[in-house]
Amino acid sequence: MAEALTLHEDPRSGNCYKIKLTAALLSVPLETRQYDILKGETRTDAFKSNVNAQGRIPVLQIGDRYLPESNAACWYLAEGTRLIPEDRFERAQMLRWMFFEQYSHEPNIATLRFWCRFVGSENLSDQQREQMMAKRIAGEDALAAMEAHLSSRDWMAGSSASLADVALFAYTHVADEGGFDLSRFPAIGRWIERVPTLDGFIPMT
Amino acid sequence: MAEALTLHEDPRSGNCYKIKLTAALLSVPLETRQYDILKGETRTDAFKSNVNAQGRIPVLQIGDRYLPESNAACWYLAEGTRLIPEDRFERAQMLRWMFFEQYSHEPNIATLRFWCRFVGSENLSDQQREQMMAKRIAGEDALAAMEAHLSSRDWMAGSSASLADVALFAYTHVADEGGFDLSRFPAIGRWIERVPTLDGFIPMT
Repeated sequence: MAEALTLHEDPRSGNCYKIKLTAALLSVPLETRQYDILKGETRTDAFKSNVNAQGRIPVLQIGDRYLPESNAACWYLAEGTRLIPEDRFERAQMLRWMFFEQYSHEPNIATLRFWCRFVGSENLSDQQREQMMAKRIAGEDALAAMEAHLSSRDWMAGSSASLADVALFAYTHVADEGGFDLSRFPAIGRWIERVPTLDGFIPMT
Repeated sequence: MAEALTLHEDPRSGNCYKIKLTAALLSVPLETRQYDILKGETRTDAFKSNVNAQGRIPVLQIGDRYLPESNAACWYLAEGTRLIPEDRFERAQMLRWMFFEQYSHEPNIATLRFWCRFVGSENLSDQQREQMMAKRIAGEDALAAMEAHLSSRDWMAGSSASLADVALFAYTHVADEGGFDLSRFPAIGRWIERVPTLDGFIPMT
């Protein structure tokens, strides 16, 4: 890979971890630059003009170009590697679970983890508090969908680990920090033990 | 394409329209099978066992295999065609805007359209009503991000229309049905007039 790669990140974010895990599994060198999202460091004018107008991390910097959206960044790093299935249907299935992750999983499981662990329940707004039950139910539904899928297979798409596993591992393996009881999902539990056996695996710090 | 393609859909859904528009732009034959989501026709045991355990449409059926998630289905149809940029960075940018669509755009703009136009504001639950303002603000933010991006370019990724345009067109061009004032976004307005000039374009019914 010719151009220097820099990840603009907050290390507490599972979305950032996905990109670091993808790079590690593929032995791709990746610099990182840290921001504290709780201090608004991604909401500054400088960040918005230079890195991401949406004021969000992660952003993968490729030379002087910027790529927001965690799963798009993982795709960029993994094109042409073993982390993307060669079969057309399996490749689409991988993307299916990556879109599932962003639509049905992350907004519920990652958000509750962020609120419970980093913001603190005593600091939540009334509106956030009112959303907690709906997010709890939707998060349980997402875990149930993964459980059903993993009950008859080792990996989310294809016959080996892919970006779908990377994307879903990030927030699933710390779902207990959002108050989810993973002991109710034994197939997910076995998969959570399987992912760290991959060559090059790095834990979330 | 050797295997028969069937789209399991509700014609009112922009997520289903994306897949039909992709197929039309590429002249790919696509059968459709209709369900009424307001009558719970995708929540039956038969649908969940045979089509999608999550009880959701759209699902693209490819022979006897099933692919949920609208953007994954578009990807499956468009692999190797002009609707996916050949350049690696532009391809990742296309996916970036497709993930943006599912995370920042659809849950706000499509949901408000569904509530306002199909459920009816008098039938909303208290919890839905409480979420309307947050979805309004987040939907405006999503439109502002598109507006800024389109102010200096004709298409969302690369130099011609891609799946990112298809994915975002679906709910953007009917955002007024969710109460969004598109006249405030002139670059989006010009893009909404540009998309229907594509060869093979079909309108949302």
